[in-house]
Amino acid sequence: MSNSFGKIFKITTFGESHGVAVGVVIDGCPAGLEITAAEIQHELDRRRPGQSNITTQRKEEDEVIILSGLYENKTTGTPIALMVNNTNQAGKDYSHLEHAFRPSHADYTYTAKYGLRDHRGGGRSSARETLARVAAGAIAQKYLQQYHIQISSYVSAVGPIALTETYEQLNLSLIDSNKIRCPQPEVAERMIALVEETRKNRDTVGGVITCVIKGLPVGLGEPAFDKLHAELGKAMLSINAVKGFEYGSGFAGTKLYGSEHNDEFYTDEKGQVRTRTNHSGGIQGGISNGEDVYFRVAFKPVATILQPQTSINSAGESITLEGRGRHDPCVLPRAVPIVDAMAALVIIDFLLRQRTVK
Amino acid sequence: MSNSFGKIFKITTFGESHGVAVGVVIDGCPAGLEITAAEIQHELDRRRPGQSNITTQRKEEDEVIILSGLYENKTTGTPIALMVNNTNQAGKDYSHLEHAFRPSHADYTYTAKYGLRDHRGGGRSSARETLARVAAGAIAQKYLQQYHIQISSYVSAVGPIALTETYEQLNLSLIDSNKIRCPQPEVAERMIALVEETRKNRDTVGGVITCVIKGLPVGLGEPAFDKLHAELGKAMLSINAVKGFEYGSGFAGTKLYGSEHNDEFYTDEKGQVRTRTNHSGGIQGGISNGEDVYFRVAFKPVATILQPQTSINSAGESITLEGRGRHDPCVLPRAVPIVDAMAALVIIDFLLRQRTVK
Amino acid sequence: MSNSFGKIFKITTFGESHGVAVGVVIDGCPAGLEITAAEIQHELDRRRPGQSNITTQRKEEDEVIILSGLYENKTTGTPIALMVNNTNQAGKDYSHLEHAFRPSHADYTYTAKYGLRDHRGGGRSSARETLARVAAGAIAQKYLQQYHIQISSYVSAVGPIALTETYEQLNLSLIDSNKIRCPQPEVAERMIALVEETRKNRDTVGGVITCVIKGLPVGLGEPAFDKLHAELGKAMLSINAVKGFEYGSGFAGTKLYGSEHNDEFYTDEKGQVRTRTNHSGGIQGGISNGEDVYFRVAFKPVATILQPQTSINSAGESITLEGRGRHDPCVLPRAVPIVDAMAALVIIDFLLRQRTVK
Amino acid sequence: MSNSFGKIFKITTFGESHGVAVGVVIDGCPAGLEITAAEIQHELDRRRPGQSNITTQRKEEDEVIILSGLYENKTTGTPIALMVNNTNQAGKDYSHLEHAFRPSHADYTYTAKYGLRDHRGGGRSSARETLARVAAGAIAQKYLQQYHIQISSYVSAVGPIALTETYEQLNLSLIDSNKIRCPQPEVAERMIALVEETRKNRDTVGGVITCVIKGLPVGLGEPAFDKLHAELGKAMLSINAVKGFEYGSGFAGTKLYGSEHNDEFYTDEKGQVRTRTNHSGGIQGGISNGEDVYFRVAFKPVATILQPQTSINSAGESITLEGRGRHDPCVLPRAVPIVDAMAALVIIDFLLRQRTVK
Repeated sequence: MSNSFGKIFKITTFGESHGVAVGVVIDGCPAGLEITAAEIQHELDRRRPGQSNITTQRKEEDEVIILSGLYENKTTGTPIALMVNNTNQAGKDYSHLEHAFRPSHADYTYTAKYGLRDHRGGGRSSARETLARVAAGAIAQKYLQQYHIQISSYVSAVGPIALTETYEQLNLSLIDSNKIRCPQPEVAERMIALVEETRKNRDTVGGVITCVIKGLPVGLGEPAFDKLHAELGKAMLSINAVKGFEYGSGFAGTKLYGSEHNDEFYTDEKGQVRTRTNHSGGIQGGISNGEDVYFRVAFKPVATILQPQTSINSAGESITLEGRGRHDPCVLPRAVPIVDAMAALVIIDFLLRQRTVK
Repeated sequence: MSNSFGKIFKITTFGESHGVAVGVVIDGCPAGLEITAAEIQHELDRRRPGQSNITTQRKEEDEVIILSGLYENKTTGTPIALMVNNTNQAGKDYSHLEHAFRPSHADYTYTAKYGLRDHRGGGRSSARETLARVAAGAIAQKYLQQYHIQISSYVSAVGPIALTETYEQLNLSLIDSNKIRCPQPEVAERMIALVEETRKNRDTVGGVITCVIKGLPVGLGEPAFDKLHAELGKAMLSINAVKGFEYGSGFAGTKLYGSEHNDEFYTDEKGQVRTRTNHSGGIQGGISNGEDVYFRVAFKPVATILQPQTSINSAGESITLEGRGRHDPCVLPRAVPIVDAMAALVIIDFLLRQRTVK
Repeated sequence: MSNSFGKIFKITTFGESHGVAVGVVIDGCPAGLEITAAEIQHELDRRRPGQSNITTQRKEEDEVIILSGLYENKTTGTPIALMVNNTNQAGKDYSHLEHAFRPSHADYTYTAKYGLRDHRGGGRSSARETLARVAAGAIAQKYLQQYHIQISSYVSAVGPIALTETYEQLNLSLIDSNKIRCPQPEVAERMIALVEETRKNRDTVGGVITCVIKGLPVGLGEPAFDKLHAELGKAMLSINAVKGFEYGSGFAGTKLYGSEHNDEFYTDEKGQVRTRTNHSGGIQGGISNGEDVYFRVAFKPVATILQPQTSINSAGESITLEGRGRHDPCVLPRAVPIVDAMAALVIIDFLLRQRTVK
Repeated sequence: MSNSFGKIFKITTFGESHGVAVGVVIDGCPAGLEITAAEIQHELDRRRPGQSNITTQRKEEDEVIILSGLYENKTTGTPIALMVNNTNQAGKDYSHLEHAFRPSHADYTYTAKYGLRDHRGGGRSSARETLARVAAGAIAQKYLQQYHIQISSYVSAVGPIALTETYEQLNLSLIDSNKIRCPQPEVAERMIALVEETRKNRDTVGGVITCVIKGLPVGLGEPAFDKLHAELGKAMLSINAVKGFEYGSGFAGTKLYGSEHNDEFYTDEKGQVRTRTNHSGGIQGGISNGEDVYFRVAFKPVATILQPQTSINSAGESITLEGRGRHDPCVLPRAVPIVDAMAALVIIDFLLRQRTVK
């Protein structure tokens, strides 16, 4: 019941880290959208392991295979199934983890929940599941381009190093210009240095991703439970390692008075309804108001560290574990396309839902 | 499509602020639960307007009427419909707001979304909708008591005034002992003073509510999209005025190294699997691990202020508005039972879902 | 989980026969539809007990109360809650049925399923639940009128007495011209005579309702599981006492060869794609093709008969039961508006879903 | 939105007849079920083309590939993805059908609905989609075996040739003993002769499948909309070529009086509640009562016939079409495992739902 997301543009993901394949079925993509495998691959490549020295050095091609739903590079309205084979899993030895409960991983909770688990590489709890989201999100983003809706995510903090400029001050076209995916170049350098140092220390570090959505029409989002920011929040919190979500003024806004926080309406020179400030983050009553939507997503440091840690095994006995192999010292740069994808999935669903409202 | 919440214990709310009634239908409540109208009323009274001088002075009885689903004070497995009549709406004049778009309210977005709106008292966008959630949550909480699951929410910050103690240090039985619903009495007094001063200034102030869930069995929550914290996050973000959600280490956790953040497992004297720290907030891989679940919810200052503000009307013309009547200078104390209710609704749904998993 | 119907135009019904009220919440009705209580009441009156001597003589007003979702007689896009008070339930004595399992009723299965039941008047299993569907269906039908979609149901058989004319031959404006709701007057008289005789014999009789949907645009219905006829079938089979559903050529069509059954396409003088025959019942591959959609619904004889019957009580002991009071000797005439309503609910949902498809 | 079925044990199918693959994702299968690829393959082989001279002579291996959700032949609680490659599609020339609307096929309605279609072999509208259902159903059936629930479907009529014995009189272990899948051998022979003759005449013929479910516990099915027979009806009507569904006394029962139709309760020697007759078809108020559930499903003759037929193309021009290649003269024997599968999918879902009810 829990592997689907969306009400109209609905995705269902499948696959374990070291099973045969990871994939997604998209049900409800409108017919007639032109999309190529290369366009999907582009987003997968942004998420791919081994893309730089500050991500895991695992080599995975992660090549998308389109199983259904397209004909002559157009969506047909039927389910779109996309799949990536797990080419890298062969020959790995995970037997030392078969009975271990790694700290701050899902080994223990999966075992308790289901009574058994596929322990290889984290099984279903691996962040490898997110490649299915990125593939689906690439199709959603292509669709949104027709409406001139632009989603831009970037790393805004790594550990204690945070951007000093707001998204309005930044040049968002620079996001992919460095390996940490931060559009403020001088801060990006310090972030990269921190990640490299962390990696050398066999440790990991967390951070924050900011996302900005421009060009959203007025009226998206639903009152009551499916507020635009509530669905965005759920979408982001469903990404591995995420610990928090805030939009607009967020937690900082709780310290303001209403007279400071309220966004005054005015009519601009084009006759468009606008607000002079945007503490609302582009959303009022759960519905987009035409201003930029922006939010921040907190990522904890990756749980797998290349240091000895004390833990227990499934018999409850104390053991010592130490991460092996190639792992991300900082998940942030590879999480940027995941945030993009989840945001696109939320927006396309609301865009389609809005067609039924009046 | 957006007025329902939950997959198995599923609620659907209805009603506008100044329509005939506000209510809820609960579909999927297990049969055989003993519950009385008085037990539901108790939670509604915690949310009721006019309960103290720091909430709105509107007088509303908000008396619950049980329309269906109970027989001799037991749930029968059929839909439970609960309703509260809007006794207070008569005779109010809202014509000055018929064409106004109040700043940081949903007037503009509703009109854009639906092409029309019931403007009286905010219509459906009024926080009055949340009484339906509180009524349903009271039933959920009664059910959870059988499993010794305890949900405790409290005000942990008002504007800049924040608690200095963690939930482990606080006596949570003191929550309802003061009118701000803060279990650290000396801080509560300062919070109350701030709200009273804000009210005198005809302004409003925001804050933070912390929620702690104790006694949760291991295994609740679903991997992938319906992670326990993702559903909690959506639930909280769907409450009026909420701007952010974080659980466990939250945003602060992003500044830690993995070696600091990881929660080490051990087996306690009862043979129970435990963690020595709880940065995970009781959730790993989206599934409860048996530790306390805790999270923080950010509330913006109430948008209605008793000061003149510049805005526009539906013709796009500039107007001056000033809040009238009786409004909350700070929504936090009345939001505490709403956070309790939404948390209970999330937990009961996962508790029932878990029965189908193995 | 089972008290909702529809994906976009979604209804949730509540209420027991002898509880406080029976009602419905409609979530997803498009905003801006003009509808009055009188229009809803008109359909409820077609279903009302006591409307003629061949229905139950119970007197129930069944007056609709609109709780939410309308403002100045227009839908606002928010949930529409409708309710009918159970004014007739007071003072009835149902204690003789408290522990009885009536033959071919749901007393036994409800008790087994839920562990308890509200036995008064059948509780939730009473066909009184269908008034909620009729109320919601009235709104759906009003919406469909804008698209010139016409739904016409009529009694086509009572016991062994069946119509001799097809729907194309009948004057469907005569449906409400007699108390059995059969548009072939001479057959209607014989049907009425049979029902009256059956009533005198303290027995009940079944029959068939035929429904025709004209004016449906091409393209409604979804391939795979939510085929137009699959949803219509589920909708009809969910009505109390229904035992079968067939559309187009139905069961009789199984005896034809493909060369006889296939519907040949041609282009008519208006350039419209048409078929020369309509064995397909207006649906191909689960999707409407622009021809009339028609189907037949089988109703068993009402289970409550005014004769002594042997049964058991909840202790498993043999007992003798005899129906008391005022019951329908034939449910068909009152079921006609229910079939209309359920058909309308299916069609409006597909109409709205189709807006998201391309 | 329409390619999923089930609420807890939920399947989503994908794939076109001549795309890369056809498959299914099962979300919500309980963990810990032992199942092998061979067990799934067994059901696929019952549906496979080319299995006898009375089915299509197309050669398709239809070998199942398990992509995820199993570990060491046990379900893990994660999504189970199954896939069959379309090995047979290469080199076929379907260009003559690119613009044709075949009579009583879905070519026209798909084109109208989506604006385009994959015409090769019927694309998504091909009954090849049902192999995904059969694969998922095999897993459901394995699960139900643990509860001693047995589902038996068989061909009970081909054209005008119908069984003379009821399911109680038949030896259901004979179903697979002949190529038409009819457990009354002497009638089976006549059915086979009719199909062979029909094939020689380059025509097709319809028929009826009867399904019996034994061993169902009391209490499955939900009142109101998701009645057991309503879901079974939808499931069956969603199978290609199905035109009708009836359960228990069905359409014939409409001709009985209530005094004839009612099923009298008694307590059997084991203390079990039973009914002396079973016109109810094992279902009362939408809920199983412990008696056998049985129903009948009407299949129209296959639309593709090897005879010239008049139709139109997408330009609206008159054309002559003639089926080519290898097609089923009668779909019934291959539809038997599909009916089994859909029944199993309905039952497992209700079995799991029932765990949440009290």
